[in-house]
Amino acid sequence: MAATQNRATPVKLTAVAAPDQPEVTPALEELYRGFEQELLVPLWTEIGDLMPAHPRSRAVPHLWRWESLRRLADQAGHIVPVGRGGERRAIALANPSLGGRPFATPTLWAAIQYLMPGEDAPEHRHTQHAFRFVVEGSGVWTVVGGDAVPMNRGDFLPQAGWNWHAHHNATSEPMAWVDGLDIPFQYVTEAQFFEFGRDEIGAAERITPERSRSEQLWAHPGLRPLSAGSTGEPTPGSPLLAYKWAHTNAALNDQLQLERAGFGGTVEPGHAAVRYTNPHNGADVLPTIRAEFHRLARGAETAPERETGSSVFQVFDGSGVVTVGDQSWTVTRGDLFVVPSWTPFSFRSEAGASDSDEGALDLFRFSDAPVFEVLRLNRTQKDA
Amino acid sequence: MAATQNRATPVKLTAVAAPDQPEVTPALEELYRGFEQELLVPLWTEIGDLMPAHPRSRAVPHLWRWESLRRLADQAGHIVPVGRGGERRAIALANPSLGGRPFATPTLWAAIQYLMPGEDAPEHRHTQHAFRFVVEGSGVWTVVGGDAVPMNRGDFLPQAGWNWHAHHNATSEPMAWVDGLDIPFQYVTEAQFFEFGRDEIGAAERITPERSRSEQLWAHPGLRPLSAGSTGEPTPGSPLLAYKWAHTNAALNDQLQLERAGFGGTVEPGHAAVRYTNPHNGADVLPTIRAEFHRLARGAETAPERETGSSVFQVFDGSGVVTVGDQSWTVTRGDLFVVPSWTPFSFRSEAGASDSDEGALDLFRFSDAPVFEVLRLNRTQKDA
Amino acid sequence: MAATQNRATPVKLTAVAAPDQPEVTPALEELYRGFEQELLVPLWTEIGDLMPAHPRSRAVPHLWRWESLRRLADQAGHIVPVGRGGERRAIALANPSLGGRPFATPTLWAAIQYLMPGEDAPEHRHTQHAFRFVVEGSGVWTVVGGDAVPMNRGDFLPQAGWNWHAHHNATSEPMAWVDGLDIPFQYVTEAQFFEFGRDEIGAAERITPERSRSEQLWAHPGLRPLSAGSTGEPTPGSPLLAYKWAHTNAALNDQLQLERAGFGGTVEPGHAAVRYTNPHNGADVLPTIRAEFHRLARGAETAPERETGSSVFQVFDGSGVVTVGDQSWTVTRGDLFVVPSWTPFSFRSEAGASDSDEGALDLFRFSDAPVFEVLRLNRTQKDA
Amino acid sequence: MAATQNRATPVKLTAVAAPDQPEVTPALEELYRGFEQELLVPLWTEIGDLMPAHPRSRAVPHLWRWESLRRLADQAGHIVPVGRGGERRAIALANPSLGGRPFATPTLWAAIQYLMPGEDAPEHRHTQHAFRFVVEGSGVWTVVGGDAVPMNRGDFLPQAGWNWHAHHNATSEPMAWVDGLDIPFQYVTEAQFFEFGRDEIGAAERITPERSRSEQLWAHPGLRPLSAGSTGEPTPGSPLLAYKWAHTNAALNDQLQLERAGFGGTVEPGHAAVRYTNPHNGADVLPTIRAEFHRLARGAETAPERETGSSVFQVFDGSGVVTVGDQSWTVTRGDLFVVPSWTPFSFRSEAGASDSDEGALDLFRFSDAPVFEVLRLNRTQKDA
Repeated sequence: MAATQNRATPVKLTAVAAPDQPEVTPALEELYRGFEQELLVPLWTEIGDLMPAHPRSRAVPHLWRWESLRRLADQAGHIVPVGRGGERRAIALANPSLGGRPFATPTLWAAIQYLMPGEDAPEHRHTQHAFRFVVEGSGVWTVVGGDAVPMNRGDFLPQAGWNWHAHHNATSEPMAWVDGLDIPFQYVTEAQFFEFGRDEIGAAERITPERSRSEQLWAHPGLRPLSAGSTGEPTPGSPLLAYKWAHTNAALNDQLQLERAGFGGTVEPGHAAVRYTNPHNGADVLPTIRAEFHRLARGAETAPERETGSSVFQVFDGSGVVTVGDQSWTVTRGDLFVVPSWTPFSFRSEAGASDSDEGALDLFRFSDAPVFEVLRLNRTQKDA
Repeated sequence: MAATQNRATPVKLTAVAAPDQPEVTPALEELYRGFEQELLVPLWTEIGDLMPAHPRSRAVPHLWRWESLRRLADQAGHIVPVGRGGERRAIALANPSLGGRPFATPTLWAAIQYLMPGEDAPEHRHTQHAFRFVVEGSGVWTVVGGDAVPMNRGDFLPQAGWNWHAHHNATSEPMAWVDGLDIPFQYVTEAQFFEFGRDEIGAAERITPERSRSEQLWAHPGLRPLSAGSTGEPTPGSPLLAYKWAHTNAALNDQLQLERAGFGGTVEPGHAAVRYTNPHNGADVLPTIRAEFHRLARGAETAPERETGSSVFQVFDGSGVVTVGDQSWTVTRGDLFVVPSWTPFSFRSEAGASDSDEGALDLFRFSDAPVFEVLRLNRTQKDA
Repeated sequence: MAATQNRATPVKLTAVAAPDQPEVTPALEELYRGFEQELLVPLWTEIGDLMPAHPRSRAVPHLWRWESLRRLADQAGHIVPVGRGGERRAIALANPSLGGRPFATPTLWAAIQYLMPGEDAPEHRHTQHAFRFVVEGSGVWTVVGGDAVPMNRGDFLPQAGWNWHAHHNATSEPMAWVDGLDIPFQYVTEAQFFEFGRDEIGAAERITPERSRSEQLWAHPGLRPLSAGSTGEPTPGSPLLAYKWAHTNAALNDQLQLERAGFGGTVEPGHAAVRYTNPHNGADVLPTIRAEFHRLARGAETAPERETGSSVFQVFDGSGVVTVGDQSWTVTRGDLFVVPSWTPFSFRSEAGASDSDEGALDLFRFSDAPVFEVLRLNRTQKDA
Repeated sequence: MAATQNRATPVKLTAVAAPDQPEVTPALEELYRGFEQELLVPLWTEIGDLMPAHPRSRAVPHLWRWESLRRLADQAGHIVPVGRGGERRAIALANPSLGGRPFATPTLWAAIQYLMPGEDAPEHRHTQHAFRFVVEGSGVWTVVGGDAVPMNRGDFLPQAGWNWHAHHNATSEPMAWVDGLDIPFQYVTEAQFFEFGRDEIGAAERITPERSRSEQLWAHPGLRPLSAGSTGEPTPGSPLLAYKWAHTNAALNDQLQLERAGFGGTVEPGHAAVRYTNPHNGADVLPTIRAEFHRLARGAETAPERETGSSVFQVFDGSGVVTVGDQSWTVTRGDLFVVPSWTPFSFRSEAGASDSDEGALDLFRFSDAPVFEVLRLNRTQKDA
């Protein structure tokens, strides 16, 4: 701990002539020198920044093109090895106004991870809650506690903190996917633990079934395996390690079909959406991360809305226009963008016949909403 | 209220010479007359019945043969009309030791319901929580709040209290199924409300889709429709109105397959089981009723177990031997039996090759377990 | 189990000519004989009783005079010994329409218990949740898990199920108090376990402090002892074993004072009330029993109200008129009365100057409300 | 939003020759330039900082002397006015290694607030959860939603977010106290809202009772006012606005007395402690802040312990030695110090006769523990 040297000039106060500030006088200057000496900072110089009328994010809206991410990840695939120490070939989004740190938002990490044919990423575990989302490709299995979970386009794989996990590319093609974690949140709250596991997964874990064991137990709607225990506290995160695309796609189509039949079912006209939930208790799939999938029928648009907390979106399919704060982008498959706290956002899919599912704008989303809800800090506002 | 006439001789005390009882003297007799006069009963004459060392059920184990139920229901179908007042052509199991009342156990109602071709059962709602389970046949739709839910062999349809519902037989065949409710529980606790609805359901509700709207919204594993609201108290019972057989069957097969592959997944060897749960919160499907499905692989048997609270089972498929307390029955499709509180029970499927799913003993079960769990009165015991 | 003999004639069906009943024909008679043979009862003959439009209690409103209870208890004190087997000299209220059984309501037990000078009641434990309430006198200590809890006028002592407990009269006077339990509820649901403990409590437990250890730990408002553990499931009932009269009285006075100062705080004009709660989690003091204390300022009256579930009241002080259903009684200290499910009730204290706390009508109340709330069966209605 | 200019060089990557880092080659340099261009940062250069084996706090242990705080606050009292805009004469602890910002720890704000005789601090409200703790003096009332809450030595006043509040010094003496808030936590998660209220409180609120209305309703142990509503979600924070010193002191003395009598009750020998809890639900008094009071009997010491999350302590009485990480301080009344995440800490009170309550070391503590617990990130470890 570098307390001693840091202590030299950690507090620096400048008396400024301004409304709402005390008059600049020699007495005030003397007071401020006293504050500095004793490591104190008055509220009256900081209140505007610390206690604003509403959240003013340090993050900014920003878009990353999948094409560039993919290209750089592949470049890294050829020159940066994967192994113990670096642990993963993961390359993270750095929000332009968060000091060059790999923070997509103040609480969320989003990265492209890349494995070359036959490569493994070594086993480890950490308290950070994580998930994978696959926008394209296949061929990698994530081995979680010995259970090999395949990854294919559209699949969502949550992985609650402190589970051992490794990755294994069983094919002859490289594969890319998106990792989402609460690394920044656990970094600022200082909660994180990390342990190395086995350097190599076992032979049995290299057998690569089409369905994980967790799915055999838990991927049946509304059906809980009795062997999971009937009472007691559920585990912190979902026991279901993969949410397959076929289910997500069917759920979204069903909502749009209900809407067309006049029975609602969508969030707003043309806007179907599901939340990935823990089948054990219906809660968010991870304690600190919410994950959702949104489908906007051709020609539909969403009403601008803002909420406390931040989100990262990835375009899964289709194309359209996304507006976040004062930014607008035309987006296409794989593009990633962030919505900072209390920043209005809306989407518009490409015009076309809205009575077909084709050409819909499909968006994967994750956010820090569970943190806000459980602490009663969540708010939303429609920006009519 | 018939208080006055009931009051004449409501309390009758007899002084008996017995260990643990006070000596029979004129003074005791006088005291007992005083108690009777003032409507009082001492603990010391009642404690054996009211506070036993463990539950001693007033109910007894009993088996009803589906064949007889089916025959009598069909007979009733030809002479007893369905309509307002009687409401349903439902014929309930009366446990032999519960005073001739239609109580399968002290808390549970179980009945066969029967609808002739083209018949409707009128709309009503009640606070009693209910479900339907279909052991054979098809052709009836239960219309719940305007949502037409088809019923086919193996389907489980929960229906939480206070939802409007009617039944409609859209085919040219009669159909039978099992109704389970908490009628006795709500009768003894005096909680029940009832309201008549429309005498006839609308034309739109006579359209009979293969999937209910509730399934379109909720029957996707781990996926919650965002239109259902993201926060707040979930509704009292499951929003999913049908748990289709295909899902239940697949879940059970998956467990047995995991077991054979050496990964557990079953409750005990050869014994797969699922609980029907509310996808909104993972809780039991109804506040007062737990429902489960058990599959016992060919040649397997369960360890005797007892628990507080009572259950009703229906054999769905296969055959085997069931032991409840000191009773044993060879059972076959459709047979119903009760397990009273704290009575040991076990099952054995027919011998045969256990590595095939064929010939397994399939049992549907419902019980009052949620009441016991939420009030912290649940206990179980293995009878090695 | 007496299944065989009970089975002889357990079901008896009579075909009656009545609206809503099927026509009486030989075929119907034959059907009913078939039902009897197979132990079946149709819904259509029972629906009026089992599924009424609203709860129609089998219990009736009734009042027991404390004077009579006290007299008979004292009489019993002289001729009925207390000891192992009979366990307690407790004499229970038997609702006039509940078949002469010691059930104050279908779910609640209420009894006067009486200990002679120097007497002990032996140790036992049971799953039934219990409490003591003291309307007069002092001198008995209830020893719960080795903690000696004094009992004085106005004190409320909850005692969650499965705690060892005994009573000890340390004085030269007999003492009476009221026991409340969920005996009928656990009897009908068949949940109950019972165990004998030591025949005699130890010498250390005969030391009779003015405050129990549970109060030293838990009777400080809003303050939890850290030694009680900081996380995890709270125990089923309150860790606080005595709610002293001084606190209850002060809380009620404070509410009336707030009301007089124009700041509300009461339930309705002149009507102060508190609920006894578990300081660990704010829940009801027992899983199946709610306990409250009501103070009605001189000259005030309550608005008639009804609710699902039943209550027992004891007049603690003052006098007034109580109306339950179509019954009205002028009540005075110690009198007990029951309010059956969905029966309107209201109270009126004696006229007088309402700006003084003197002459208020003080009522202790307990009910089965937690059962109804946790199962979502609770309803209330104002009867304007 | 200053996105554009920030964007110039937000990411800066330096390829370094180090174990666990990829070989420094022109290709790697080119890759890093590509990352910078696209606002990307690889995991392998950051993992040591972001995913350590255990929390390594950016904060350091530090002690602030009350004497200096008091002196500077008084100095400020004479030259810095209190009013709209600056809002409060609050002077916050700035942890020496948190960049000169007024953050005692990464999540917690702690400040001395000071009001001169007759002064008011204007009304406002904010989502930040707050409390006051009074180490000395009296004379100020905090007016929360119109309820005037007096502040005296030893009192703890929680104030959940979004409640209107103002302060009013009704006496002829200045008064100082400590404010604790979750300002840093809400700053990093970007949750905060703020609104100005009335510039002046009303005449009725200048009446300064000895007890707040919230205490009249809620400061009775285990007793809930029925007027507060019997069901539904409790409010986010405690309805009890003051935890008076007399109660806290009595609770601590009771624990030590129980320990001396051989009945436990303390956390460890000589160490009594209480947590301030919400009487409505037993939860922490604020959603994001835990508050406790610890008393260490004369001559006792605590076992070193560490936990995730950070704390701020204030010495309330007595003196002793505090050890936090590699720092040790002899502390006395009013001194404040911080314990960063996962830093071992222990206390030792001055030697002396431990069988007297006199001379005990009394410590007030607050922390961010509720955030960690609700997100399942809490861990503790005894450092033998």
